[in-house]
Amino acid sequence: MNDLSLRALFIGRFNPFHNGHLSVIHKILGESKKTRKKYEDQISEIIIGVGSSQESHTLTNPFTGGERVEMIRTTLLNSQIPSEKYLIIPIPDVHRNAIWVSHVESMCPLFQIVITNNQLTSRLFSEANYTIISPPLVDRSILSASEVRKRMINGNDWQSLVPPQVKDLIERYDGVTRIKNISSIDN
Amino acid sequence: MNDLSLRALFIGRFNPFHNGHLSVIHKILGESKKTRKKYEDQISEIIIGVGSSQESHTLTNPFTGGERVEMIRTTLLNSQIPSEKYLIIPIPDVHRNAIWVSHVESMCPLFQIVITNNQLTSRLFSEANYTIISPPLVDRSILSASEVRKRMINGNDWQSLVPPQVKDLIERYDGVTRIKNISSIDN
Amino acid sequence: MNDLSLRALFIGRFNPFHNGHLSVIHKILGESKKTRKKYEDQISEIIIGVGSSQESHTLTNPFTGGERVEMIRTTLLNSQIPSEKYLIIPIPDVHRNAIWVSHVESMCPLFQIVITNNQLTSRLFSEANYTIISPPLVDRSILSASEVRKRMINGNDWQSLVPPQVKDLIERYDGVTRIKNISSIDN
Amino acid sequence: MNDLSLRALFIGRFNPFHNGHLSVIHKILGESKKTRKKYEDQISEIIIGVGSSQESHTLTNPFTGGERVEMIRTTLLNSQIPSEKYLIIPIPDVHRNAIWVSHVESMCPLFQIVITNNQLTSRLFSEANYTIISPPLVDRSILSASEVRKRMINGNDWQSLVPPQVKDLIERYDGVTRIKNISSIDN
Amino acid sequence: MNDLSLRALFIGRFNPFHNGHLSVIHKILGESKKTRKKYEDQISEIIIGVGSSQESHTLTNPFTGGERVEMIRTTLLNSQIPSEKYLIIPIPDVHRNAIWVSHVESMCPLFQIVITNNQLTSRLFSEANYTIISPPLVDRSILSASEVRKRMINGNDWQSLVPPQVKDLIERYDGVTRIKNISSIDN
Amino acid sequence: MNDLSLRALFIGRFNPFHNGHLSVIHKILGESKKTRKKYEDQISEIIIGVGSSQESHTLTNPFTGGERVEMIRTTLLNSQIPSEKYLIIPIPDVHRNAIWVSHVESMCPLFQIVITNNQLTSRLFSEANYTIISPPLVDRSILSASEVRKRMINGNDWQSLVPPQVKDLIERYDGVTRIKNISSIDN
Repeated sequence: MNDLSLRALFIGRFNPFHNGHLSVIHKILGESKKTRKKYEDQISEIIIGVGSSQESHTLTNPFTGGERVEMIRTTLLNSQIPSEKYLIIPIPDVHRNAIWVSHVESMCPLFQIVITNNQLTSRLFSEANYTIISPPLVDRSILSASEVRKRMINGNDWQSLVPPQVKDLIERYDGVTRIKNISSIDN
Repeated sequence: MNDLSLRALFIGRFNPFHNGHLSVIHKILGESKKTRKKYEDQISEIIIGVGSSQESHTLTNPFTGGERVEMIRTTLLNSQIPSEKYLIIPIPDVHRNAIWVSHVESMCPLFQIVITNNQLTSRLFSEANYTIISPPLVDRSILSASEVRKRMINGNDWQSLVPPQVKDLIERYDGVTRIKNISSIDN
Repeated sequence: MNDLSLRALFIGRFNPFHNGHLSVIHKILGESKKTRKKYEDQISEIIIGVGSSQESHTLTNPFTGGERVEMIRTTLLNSQIPSEKYLIIPIPDVHRNAIWVSHVESMCPLFQIVITNNQLTSRLFSEANYTIISPPLVDRSILSASEVRKRMINGNDWQSLVPPQVKDLIERYDGVTRIKNISSIDN
Repeated sequence: MNDLSLRALFIGRFNPFHNGHLSVIHKILGESKKTRKKYEDQISEIIIGVGSSQESHTLTNPFTGGERVEMIRTTLLNSQIPSEKYLIIPIPDVHRNAIWVSHVESMCPLFQIVITNNQLTSRLFSEANYTIISPPLVDRSILSASEVRKRMINGNDWQSLVPPQVKDLIERYDGVTRIKNISSIDN
Repeated sequence: MNDLSLRALFIGRFNPFHNGHLSVIHKILGESKKTRKKYEDQISEIIIGVGSSQESHTLTNPFTGGERVEMIRTTLLNSQIPSEKYLIIPIPDVHRNAIWVSHVESMCPLFQIVITNNQLTSRLFSEANYTIISPPLVDRSILSASEVRKRMINGNDWQSLVPPQVKDLIERYDGVTRIKNISSIDN
Repeated sequence: MNDLSLRALFIGRFNPFHNGHLSVIHKILGESKKTRKKYEDQISEIIIGVGSSQESHTLTNPFTGGERVEMIRTTLLNSQIPSEKYLIIPIPDVHRNAIWVSHVESMCPLFQIVITNNQLTSRLFSEANYTIISPPLVDRSILSASEVRKRMINGNDWQSLVPPQVKDLIERYDGVTRIKNISSIDN
């Protein structure tokens, strides 16, 4: 990074990483910059923060932090995006909103911008004076991680919602059986 | 990774990342493979695990996890090593040896080999049936992170022990003043 | 405190501190003692324990522990109650009922009486042989912290339910926007 | 244990220990081995793991870990099962599925088989290559701990669902009043 | 507080609160303002932060957080300092330097200045852009909490180093016997 | 237990369980009761609390909680002591002295007496009004767990200091190599 460039944090749980996530990264780092705001032009690097990285084997977080890192990395290595443009960091929860921003800061290289559509994330980073980018949601009703997980449980087509590398990895992890097992817990 | 290739975990605290660390990575991933053992030839990727990533501002861990990630990443992006060959993962402590291997596994993509000279790390991964590589230590008396930190505190030449990118980042972090401040705590 | 006087713990989350809370303190410490039981007459000091003090920016605990301490303190400094009569202590959660009483005891000066209408708090302190006072609830349907928060979210009159000092502080904290932001999380 | 014998972990929360739990233990360790599978014949010892042992005074975990240990122990000491055949171990939660198996392993002597009807427990131990036994559920609709707790709250007959020693202990703990108190929390 | 006034955090462990601590508070809040810097004149309120408040019964932290709060409060209520000028807040440790400032901020009303002679505290709050005041140490060799504790263990005069209210409370807590017991642990 | 009998907690770390520990249990539960005090005669059951049960693979706690439980259990099953007379409970650390007694109580059936020679344990349970028994130390210079560990590291005779069952288990755990590995950590 030179002194005029900015680093952005794109934070999510990526359970799993899907086409909507990938398109956000493409948009932020991509070539066609016509619709971007001025500071977006200056973003030279994205930190992809994998939130709740300590969670796994639950309905909302079926994959381990390491599995989610691997999904993102394998997808991006197979994309057009140069690897010096992104950095993947697992972020475990601290379960205290008032210290969460400091916690994230301590785990990441310095950043100036936060990319998120989550209201709480947005609120906490705003209070700490970060610039927030809310990417336009594309087809939110079907391009969401909860939709992908629901289709896995119900035996519907989830494969078309994720990059092919993610599909392959989930099969290697035996991920569909795992999430089906978890979903059958009556508790 | 294809199915015959192996992933290795190189775990350390990297406080800071120094020339000895860099030479281990070069050796494992480098071109001159004459002296390598058979399974070393198969290592196609290294996970660089940044241990005690939650620690900072102490005498043994002066830098944050994020700063240490940045040191390693900036150095490697400026080296000859292709970025698809390595992956940097911060690993916070769990303070329980019996579950530490599981904890590391959950934060990383699958790996088969562990690179370490630490006896406890070696012991714990051995009990979990991992193959251990202990890289030959080069000039341990001067190429160690504790030597670098000692020189920073005493005002001696530490710059020659670290890659130039690490030197620049430590200066940007005002790292020498920080470690001097910490070292003057009478407690 | 002299040897015949008693200290009482009044524990709540105070998110936010409202007129019902204030009236309980007035009743316990107030002048008109005609309706009080014998041991109530001996209460010379109240510890106001701010529970879940580590929580903030959630629907049930929108304010930080420090903000809640400030609300209570500013209100009481502007009341007729002498400051030697009360003491405000933030109490973080321990998430284990069996040790919670010990935890509270370790954070507070010695006390003999617990003021609460919460069944679990009452149960836990009863098992530890404390005397419990359950203050009569005044207008519970409108004088509750959850009612105040609901009105904030819905844009209704919440200001009349809290002391004027609390109203001013919540405005200074930009509290209404904060709780509205949090409430819009679809998650 | 000799070298051919196996140890099985029977894990539950036992809130409280009821006749269904006892019948599982009898079946696994009992004399009539006609219907058992081959490896079941080799089970010479059961570790009874008391999960969520740090929890108490909640609707799903009303009893402390120590009280649950005492219920199981007192019942078994009064049964025909020799005491060298079982071992009771409280297992506190770690709140992270990926390390939970390691955590359980570190608290117990070595075991090879896991007895459970819980899908998540089954999944996690399967991923760690344990053999799983799912005991046939007898009268699940009435022989479950949640049914026992529901009857306690509603004032119905719960006593017939638990061993007489458990009934006596719950009365000594004043358990019915405790759970009724907790259930009345409006929160 | 009006808009021109400042709040200062005076953070220590106060094990126990001694005459040196009291003189710092007197100096900051006191009448003779001739030697004060401009911003010191504006300090209208001190937050007394009781650090490591979760610790007790150790050689360096023999007293509970609650006992330390009581020592400070009882002393100040018996001093000339008006009670609207100070606020006592127990601050438990978080064991992570990078998030400690956020943690303290979340437990306290807003403050602008930090009073400390501890190098690490000073460093951490400086990095977060707080103004630091380092009060001149008076007779550090005898006016330190470690000196008070050493004298208690050795049976020497510790009483003259603390305010009379602190002496009385330590006797009520049986504090000298407690610290002697702890110091005899061979471990 | 009948209503006149008492339960005693014997708490230690048992790293490893040695002949001194066994002789304490024999003395408390044994036949020759001539030298016992009145309340000792009433002890009908011992809870053997395995402290720091979450620790392992360190110089002071080389064995897991589960391994230590197994050492004690196997030894006692091979002794003359009836199994209804003792109960083994792993007790993980809470790292806070003020709540430690409550923590232990929640993990154990009700007890009235504590058997310990540790000053801190004695102090904490005394403050909670338990009766303390300090067993006379037999040959402390050689019958201590630290002596056993020191001999393991130095290759001296440790076997004679522990029951034969413990010796066998330590060999099965490969314990001597483990502790030697750990002791060679230069750190």
